[in-house]
Amino acid sequence: MLYTEIPTERPVTVLLDEIDHPQQLRQLAQSQLAQVADELRQYILYAAGQSGGHFGANLGVIELTVALHYCFNTPRDRLVWDVGHQAYPHKVLTGRREQITTIRSKNGLAAFPARDESEFDTFGVGHSSTAISAGLGMALARRYQKDPCDVVAIVGDGAMTAGMAFEAMNDAVAHDADLIVVLNDNDMSISCSTGGFAKHLAAIWESGQLVNLNELGEAYIQPHPKWTYNSRLHQSATDAADNLFKAIGFDYFGPFDGHDVEQLAQVFHALKKRKGPRLVHIYTKKGKGFAPAEADPITYHAITKIAPAASAPIKKSPPKYSDVFGQWLCDEAAQDERLLAITPAMCEGSGMVKFAQQYPERFFDVAIAEQHAVTLAAGMACEGLKPVVAIYSTFLQRGYDQLIHDVALQNLDVTFGIDRAGLVGEDGPTHAGAYDYAFMRTVPNMVIMAPKDENECRQMLHTAYLYNGPTAVRYPRGAGVGVDIQDKMTALEIGKAEVVAEFNVDAAQQISILAFGSRVTASVQAAELFANKHSIGIRVINMRFVKPLDEHIIRELADSTQLFVTVEEHAVMAGAGSAVNEFLAQAKIVKPILNLGLPDAFLLQASHQQMLQDCGLDSQGILTSIEKAWF
Amino acid sequence: MLYTEIPTERPVTVLLDEIDHPQQLRQLAQSQLAQVADELRQYILYAAGQSGGHFGANLGVIELTVALHYCFNTPRDRLVWDVGHQAYPHKVLTGRREQITTIRSKNGLAAFPARDESEFDTFGVGHSSTAISAGLGMALARRYQKDPCDVVAIVGDGAMTAGMAFEAMNDAVAHDADLIVVLNDNDMSISCSTGGFAKHLAAIWESGQLVNLNELGEAYIQPHPKWTYNSRLHQSATDAADNLFKAIGFDYFGPFDGHDVEQLAQVFHALKKRKGPRLVHIYTKKGKGFAPAEADPITYHAITKIAPAASAPIKKSPPKYSDVFGQWLCDEAAQDERLLAITPAMCEGSGMVKFAQQYPERFFDVAIAEQHAVTLAAGMACEGLKPVVAIYSTFLQRGYDQLIHDVALQNLDVTFGIDRAGLVGEDGPTHAGAYDYAFMRTVPNMVIMAPKDENECRQMLHTAYLYNGPTAVRYPRGAGVGVDIQDKMTALEIGKAEVVAEFNVDAAQQISILAFGSRVTASVQAAELFANKHSIGIRVINMRFVKPLDEHIIRELADSTQLFVTVEEHAVMAGAGSAVNEFLAQAKIVKPILNLGLPDAFLLQASHQQMLQDCGLDSQGILTSIEKAWF
Repeated sequence: MLYTEIPTERPVTVLLDEIDHPQQLRQLAQSQLAQVADELRQYILYAAGQSGGHFGANLGVIELTVALHYCFNTPRDRLVWDVGHQAYPHKVLTGRREQITTIRSKNGLAAFPARDESEFDTFGVGHSSTAISAGLGMALARRYQKDPCDVVAIVGDGAMTAGMAFEAMNDAVAHDADLIVVLNDNDMSISCSTGGFAKHLAAIWESGQLVNLNELGEAYIQPHPKWTYNSRLHQSATDAADNLFKAIGFDYFGPFDGHDVEQLAQVFHALKKRKGPRLVHIYTKKGKGFAPAEADPITYHAITKIAPAASAPIKKSPPKYSDVFGQWLCDEAAQDERLLAITPAMCEGSGMVKFAQQYPERFFDVAIAEQHAVTLAAGMACEGLKPVVAIYSTFLQRGYDQLIHDVALQNLDVTFGIDRAGLVGEDGPTHAGAYDYAFMRTVPNMVIMAPKDENECRQMLHTAYLYNGPTAVRYPRGAGVGVDIQDKMTALEIGKAEVVAEFNVDAAQQISILAFGSRVTASVQAAELFANKHSIGIRVINMRFVKPLDEHIIRELADSTQLFVTVEEHAVMAGAGSAVNEFLAQAKIVKPILNLGLPDAFLLQASHQQMLQDCGLDSQGILTSIEKAWF
Repeated sequence: MLYTEIPTERPVTVLLDEIDHPQQLRQLAQSQLAQVADELRQYILYAAGQSGGHFGANLGVIELTVALHYCFNTPRDRLVWDVGHQAYPHKVLTGRREQITTIRSKNGLAAFPARDESEFDTFGVGHSSTAISAGLGMALARRYQKDPCDVVAIVGDGAMTAGMAFEAMNDAVAHDADLIVVLNDNDMSISCSTGGFAKHLAAIWESGQLVNLNELGEAYIQPHPKWTYNSRLHQSATDAADNLFKAIGFDYFGPFDGHDVEQLAQVFHALKKRKGPRLVHIYTKKGKGFAPAEADPITYHAITKIAPAASAPIKKSPPKYSDVFGQWLCDEAAQDERLLAITPAMCEGSGMVKFAQQYPERFFDVAIAEQHAVTLAAGMACEGLKPVVAIYSTFLQRGYDQLIHDVALQNLDVTFGIDRAGLVGEDGPTHAGAYDYAFMRTVPNMVIMAPKDENECRQMLHTAYLYNGPTAVRYPRGAGVGVDIQDKMTALEIGKAEVVAEFNVDAAQQISILAFGSRVTASVQAAELFANKHSIGIRVINMRFVKPLDEHIIRELADSTQLFVTVEEHAVMAGAGSAVNEFLAQAKIVKPILNLGLPDAFLLQASHQQMLQDCGLDSQGILTSIEKAWF
């Protein structure tokens, strides 16, 4: 069925309502699976409307999920979902049907599979391309334990471009592991650029051949039908018909129609009769079964909740930091032909759509390949260009060695625009950017900045760009604070902080808050609240630079300061406040210091503001901590 | 010529002596190249005997290096050496002939290509698998600048298993970049395990076909001769004849005999007539031309200097930390069947040879694939096993995101044995392990230990192994301090430090040195020197744990301490001392503190001891710093 609207009333789902455990699914006849899939699709449409969240990917794997739980003996057999934003149908079929509307909200289901949540969630995910490695670990462990089971890793075509997936396939063949990889090919590796892997999938398609299995698990070749939704038809293929998966040593089967649930069930049943590393290539459509999402899968990658009819009109909110980055990129590029921009498959998320349109020859989407993205930039910088790498904080963790060795060690002129730094709300702990100050500031040659607002973000990006060496500007997820953005770009002095607020300046006792990035505004509010209550001087410094620190201003303040406070949206451990501690120690400034930041724990999802409040990093929380430290 | 001895006298090298720039090489006739190669081999043999250093890989690329500089217009054309330990012949041919005997020594040539050293060193390397990314960056930059040149990335078969190389190949095809990749296949990807990639290279070999080029750059197929040194003959091949490089979209040529310098020159000349991503597969032998190294390439991977005849007999030195790790691994495995061990292609370096022999079914060499190694361990831990990942500190940087997401976030029971932590001497800055405290301690759930000596290393590994969660023991390169190692393994209390020395205990004023890992012994020596000179109390605490810190002992000491000193072989920025600062701040202990550790700079190669001295981290340096802080 093709649906055109997201239902606001719960649909009637007779078969689905009886499935509290996949064992109940497995008792149905194969001919009933199509109905289960249809009910599941309606229910997911309804539930996503209630909760918001990832959308297109979940609609695309309905039939696959039904077939997997039907054919494999879950949870004893292991399903490992790569990335995991497509696991809503899996959660529904594994005892979490009624809770699915709570997904991504505080105390609700996690956005991704999570081991704590269910025994069916074999591996916690969030970042891409880990499923083959994890699944291989499980398969080898079970073989060693002489208790083998089927292990199935489900990986999208986009995630396959990450080198880690290749590393795992290489190793699976080394061990002749009993592992099934389902390549869920939904064209996403071709969203921005067309890499060799995408071309290869097109070549497989253009060959017109399908490798099928009979009931004994024996392979045979047949022509494959041309499914109308296959946009691979329009891709340029590689010349050769060589099969990459067979070359690396996997048995290859497919491509199959990933929305034909009965055929999928036949394939999986047959596949269980074989051993060794097997790859099943299926073709699915993001947003399948919902007409608007089929037509525009990028917009429907995720949706927001359906707003109640009576809700107040939404105020125009300030621009997102990612849009500020995107606009700066265009403006800087207009002034300097040396600017090139790189993204590891986050063109939209990083705000680069406009740049990509205006400067296609200067825009490089390298696919999900963070390691490569960073070193590619280093290579470009060697030729005298000025590459800008746009990357989320959490994904830069994937390019860390390259940041150290290929960029910082050679002191190359690369600018990092680090998005989603700090807490990220509903996506939860896998996407938090809580460690970048720590892992970057320990590296020599790095210059690290964090803006207090969207205008400063623009100016800092300009500053970073002009600086001849490795620099990073890290900014939070979501909207700015609502200040005017100056078109004119003015470089800041490297390592120079600014005093942004002073209260009760004549008081004998003074508190100095050294605030970083997104916590400057809340710190000013906290200081004002404090000053209104107590006759104690309090001032707020927007530190701007995590490295190099403005040591001069700290020295200047020290004489008149009885308590230093540092505030940041980053782990306290090894963070920006810790850098201040180090300087105070080195300068022999012996004063009380209060380090405020994120606790030493992985934080579960909630709204961004709620999470900040829970961590005591909103203005009220900062105030309370200061009062506790002072009195 | 096949040589059997390393010459101690400089050989006569008539042609080589005239080459101070590759331009002079390019003026020779193609028929003279074999003589240049022969002279270069003799000279490299002689020079390596004088300086020590990497050996087998350099002898293997003599003909390749000559052919590349002969055919390409270096330095305008770009040669990018992957890993770079095979760049000695390149350095000799590019104006550094007379300095090559200084390689790896203080103020001498770097062990690897270095941009600061020569315009011919286009990219600084040290870690593997970066060359295609960097070369692609250069090629795209030069295309954008409308000043194209030939870019050649030279990559070993071992390095090709790292996912980053795959990411870069995928992207090179996306841009149809004018890039040549030389796959220098010397069987090293098969040193321990046989992955899918190695099998694929064997399949190419077994096909018996060679893709050659004529003078116009047109491809044609011919049978290839069976070179006697090709051990691929003995490998099991994948079933298919599918070509992986063609599948990903590269033009494939080869395999060629990498020691036939004239043929290589013909191939490279022809290759320049083509555009787009091209891969040339050549076959070389590590240690080629030196009989003992050809026979045993693993032993001859690197050699030490030829000792002068009159040198004193070498004292039996304490065991290396890597050997302590290896012995512990065997002993723990004997007690617990759940132990599995993983290495990313560092079986020998990590001291695991014995384990691999004793427990082949529990030993997993996953090839150069750090990302995969960490997540594979996570998958194994999900099944209730207790994987141990042996990895160098500098290479763990490649698996950082996996450490956070796949291990720590899920609080899985994985033990990391982190070798080469701290300074590493002659290998220089690319191999230093100076950042692991910082990037690990900011991550929740991690337990991090550092032993003061080889016995404590064994006990800590045992402690880490027993602990049910993610743990890391980080130990230095080289030998222990010479204490007895207790066979019996006794778990330490988590987060518990020990007082190891106290001097002038009755003095009114006290200094407390909180020492970490390899710096405990030097700290005790420094304290003793200090106590002998000054009537001030001084005590040394072996902190043992970077996380969790022993907060109890710090609190206890605080009352009687006038100066805290932290000492570690790690960057001061965000390091272990910084963790102490954070605790003191949090506990409102307001005291002077001196953080000693590595400076915020990349340190060039010298002996390990020399580097420690230069950083003020030997006993004398620690003493001086304390005196300076105190008086």
